Amino acid sequence: MNNIHQFQQPDNLIVSSGYADQNTPLVRNCWYVAGRSEEVSRELMHRRILGVDVAMYRTLAGAPVAVRNRCPHRSFPLAKGKLDGDVLVCGYHGMQFDSSGRCVNMPSMPLVPSNANVRSFPIVERAPLLWIWMGDPDLADEELVPDTHWLSSDEFKSVTGNFYMKSDYVAMHENLLDQTHFPFLHPGTVGTPAYARSKLDVREEGMEVVIDRALRNSPPPGIYGVPAGIMHKSVDRLSEARFVSPAMHVAFARIVDHQPDAGAPTQYRFNITHIITPETNNTIHYWWFNSRDFKHDDVEVDAFMIKASEQAYLEDVDALEWISEVVQKDADPQFDLNFAPDKPGLLMRRNLHRLAAAEAEKAYSQNTVSGEI
Amino acid sequence: MNNIHQFQQPDNLIVSSGYADQNTPLVRNCWYVAGRSEEVSRELMHRRILGVDVAMYRTLAGAPVAVRNRCPHRSFPLAKGKLDGDVLVCGYHGMQFDSSGRCVNMPSMPLVPSNANVRSFPIVERAPLLWIWMGDPDLADEELVPDTHWLSSDEFKSVTGNFYMKSDYVAMHENLLDQTHFPFLHPGTVGTPAYARSKLDVREEGMEVVIDRALRNSPPPGIYGVPAGIMHKSVDRLSEARFVSPAMHVAFARIVDHQPDAGAPTQYRFNITHIITPETNNTIHYWWFNSRDFKHDDVEVDAFMIKASEQAYLEDVDALEWISEVVQKDADPQFDLNFAPDKPGLLMRRNLHRLAAAEAEKAYSQNTVSGEI
Amino acid sequence: MNNIHQFQQPDNLIVSSGYADQNTPLVRNCWYVAGRSEEVSRELMHRRILGVDVAMYRTLAGAPVAVRNRCPHRSFPLAKGKLDGDVLVCGYHGMQFDSSGRCVNMPSMPLVPSNANVRSFPIVERAPLLWIWMGDPDLADEELVPDTHWLSSDEFKSVTGNFYMKSDYVAMHENLLDQTHFPFLHPGTVGTPAYARSKLDVREEGMEVVIDRALRNSPPPGIYGVPAGIMHKSVDRLSEARFVSPAMHVAFARIVDHQPDAGAPTQYRFNITHIITPETNNTIHYWWFNSRDFKHDDVEVDAFMIKASEQAYLEDVDALEWISEVVQKDADPQFDLNFAPDKPGLLMRRNLHRLAAAEAEKAYSQNTVSGEI
Repeated sequence: MNNIHQFQQPDNLIVSSGYADQNTPLVRNCWYVAGRSEEVSRELMHRRILGVDVAMYRTLAGAPVAVRNRCPHRSFPLAKGKLDGDVLVCGYHGMQFDSSGRCVNMPSMPLVPSNANVRSFPIVERAPLLWIWMGDPDLADEELVPDTHWLSSDEFKSVTGNFYMKSDYVAMHENLLDQTHFPFLHPGTVGTPAYARSKLDVREEGMEVVIDRALRNSPPPGIYGVPAGIMHKSVDRLSEARFVSPAMHVAFARIVDHQPDAGAPTQYRFNITHIITPETNNTIHYWWFNSRDFKHDDVEVDAFMIKASEQAYLEDVDALEWISEVVQKDADPQFDLNFAPDKPGLLMRRNLHRLAAAEAEKAYSQNTVSGEI
Repeated sequence: MNNIHQFQQPDNLIVSSGYADQNTPLVRNCWYVAGRSEEVSRELMHRRILGVDVAMYRTLAGAPVAVRNRCPHRSFPLAKGKLDGDVLVCGYHGMQFDSSGRCVNMPSMPLVPSNANVRSFPIVERAPLLWIWMGDPDLADEELVPDTHWLSSDEFKSVTGNFYMKSDYVAMHENLLDQTHFPFLHPGTVGTPAYARSKLDVREEGMEVVIDRALRNSPPPGIYGVPAGIMHKSVDRLSEARFVSPAMHVAFARIVDHQPDAGAPTQYRFNITHIITPETNNTIHYWWFNSRDFKHDDVEVDAFMIKASEQAYLEDVDALEWISEVVQKDADPQFDLNFAPDKPGLLMRRNLHRLAAAEAEKAYSQNTVSGEI
Repeated sequence: MNNIHQFQQPDNLIVSSGYADQNTPLVRNCWYVAGRSEEVSRELMHRRILGVDVAMYRTLAGAPVAVRNRCPHRSFPLAKGKLDGDVLVCGYHGMQFDSSGRCVNMPSMPLVPSNANVRSFPIVERAPLLWIWMGDPDLADEELVPDTHWLSSDEFKSVTGNFYMKSDYVAMHENLLDQTHFPFLHPGTVGTPAYARSKLDVREEGMEVVIDRALRNSPPPGIYGVPAGIMHKSVDRLSEARFVSPAMHVAFARIVDHQPDAGAPTQYRFNITHIITPETNNTIHYWWFNSRDFKHDDVEVDAFMIKASEQAYLEDVDALEWISEVVQKDADPQFDLNFAPDKPGLLMRRNLHRLAAAEAEKAYSQNTVSGEI
């Protein structure tokens, strides 16, 4: 239109001032959970991670394998092919790849073509999780896989569940670092009013953001008090919430009962593990684990923990999906206001932005066809 | 692609020559109907208007309130929250807004944050309609609310209905100003062949476009003749169609029976009110009202008027949605031909274009970050 | 985003190096099948071809007519109108067009407007097919309609079917010129392992690409051997696959039985006709015909040929749709690898690219408003 100028507010003020949001490029050099151990088997499966579809299976020896779900020849999705021993066979022309992604046979060719490989992704198992590295493989240091030892330790009993979310991982991490929403979004589960007003201690450990919080001599929330059988008591609630990486948030909660009943413990521990794997900038594969250090074999407690967790997390999922829809559909952009209690989330968003910016800078400097872009 | 140039015809000739079309920015400084009075209550509701989602409710005293359906803190849709008296409480962090949109409490903060308001929209009630102003609030003069007194007058009995249309409001207004389509699109209701050929008188009153038409001594169309019980007669049909504003079109029809039966009136009046609220450039909230000055308490006439109106308007809705689909899907653009009878629509489109261009010009001149756009 | 540069690999290397892919502009100066003869009747129908919706009908004398499905006045889809003799009447304002697209009446106008025509497309019948020319009408030479005489010859009995495919015509043509996928994608029908390894002879005839292949003294594939009743024999299989034009691929197969049973033929011929009409760059109207020169009246053979063909072609359709989804959804582009057996497809893609580039060049040079583009 020549003589009608559509006024557009610039939508990059926050981004350019250094805080990640839903439009920030996803951080690639990071271990993300590709799935639970039991999801990957001798049946070919696939899952989109950071925008790239990944085919996964296990070798006969049980090792997990992850390759791009796209044949390098004619882009056929390899998960629609089949396994022949440890070899993945494309369903279109029968091209064969070993578990490193190397082509070991192309039936229409007399010799195996050199350099005809499918991209494979570093994948390591820390049961019950499989971690994948979608970024520069030279940086895929297994030492960087986040600690989740409580998920496989005898000390804890875990229950788990998952959601496919139409939201962005920045808003999800911010939600997890934000406990002022508990009494409003989760009044029936984790959100006691007193907790919302208890003092925060926020600190950074490298790229990690940690919140410590102590609430003394107060009734426990139902999600902890009911399984422990201490709803009638006043207890101390000590919690640490931690942004571990773009892929994970953990919360460690201790409920301390200074006057335990006979035979009852003085302390109940709950480790909550939030696994966040971006499918795209606007969708997330989300798994949660709720681990406790008591009543390991009590199936009624298991059922209660699952039900209460699903209820609380569904409230978050719903809220974040509604927000995502608002942000994407609204004709007018909005610069969200920030308040003092948003500090943990803003630290995380600044760190995410630094990681994304560093990756983008590196990719840009390595780009040899920059004149064409 | 380097060496293949895709030929694109320019699609802005008509627009740049001064006639609004489906791509023209929506006119914002105008009263639009946000809903019928009975739609807005103590239950929070929301509706997207001119691309912006609006949350609506009534205060305890019954006054309508309209605010942006997006919390200024973290973009949560406020209509998913709750009312506490006259205060709207966000469902995420419990942020509270009074009916002017002013934040009156943020639970996680010791003091009420200043300037933490949600945008409120001027909204006025002219029963059975609620009118909203989405543009510059300084220009929201209640005197500019269009006259619809017949919808609440004892002189008239009204029936009503509504459609959600996948079309643009320019095409809708053009359809309403165009009576040459009656015999082809509406052969069974309003479109008598003689009427299509009757002479038009077109004039402008400011931005309004008015068509007067008189058809003498001719059988009435069914939609008027049946309820009046004069289908067997030859009557005069006098009608005025008026583009009142981007939000409304009205048609006033008089059927004059010069030889009335004993006890029957000599004149039957029909006021047709078309309420057009763009949801986006390509979708419309459309309400119609058909008001008559006779047989106020005849429920059979009510039922007939509803049925005949819905049939006729559905024909328009279908046609406009088909056209919108054609325009949006077609690989090749088309510059529609204009004929002499299109004059009323073209006057309206020129006026709509002037309004949109003036708003865009003003927004542009006020834009202080123009270098970035 | 100011300080985050998203790295994008250029996606035009193959295109700019001269091979058509899914993004290459569709070739317009070519006869495409608009439909089967029996689809076009006195009932108005429409079909989108090369991105343009086309309304079709037959005159009272039976001649097929194809015009743009968009009234030149207000873009109403003409196929929603009606026929009045040979005249197509728009359903909105009653504008009338003869079978050449010329306006012969506009009811609201005293005189027929000059130059108020709808674009008509050259369309010719070669039963059972109707061929349309969407490009420059001056180039629409009927001599260029591809030969399909076997579809209407007494020498052959044909069965047919069709698919609506979410794929691009380049990948479809490449699939048809590629026989190395037979044993992998079609193990149960046309893909005997020996055939995949038989030698190809590839040649070009103008823009056409031809593959000859001979497999001697080998069991026939089920799709040929079962209807011929020679599954227990070793026979010669001689086949020609031909990229005829952007609109058609044909395969001529001969099965030679050097030791026929008493009364049985020594040769069985199968002509497979693949009709490919792009709806858009990513969708195809696809018709197939399978013609045989024996057992013309055997309905069981008809049923077998339909079932086996549908099975084999559905495997191709599925594969191509999966690939199209991979290509469109993948966050990272991929440059497909090419191997020696891909030569026929690459020749075809080079020819398609030449045709597209020549049309784009011509359109560009004729563009008189280039300054505005």
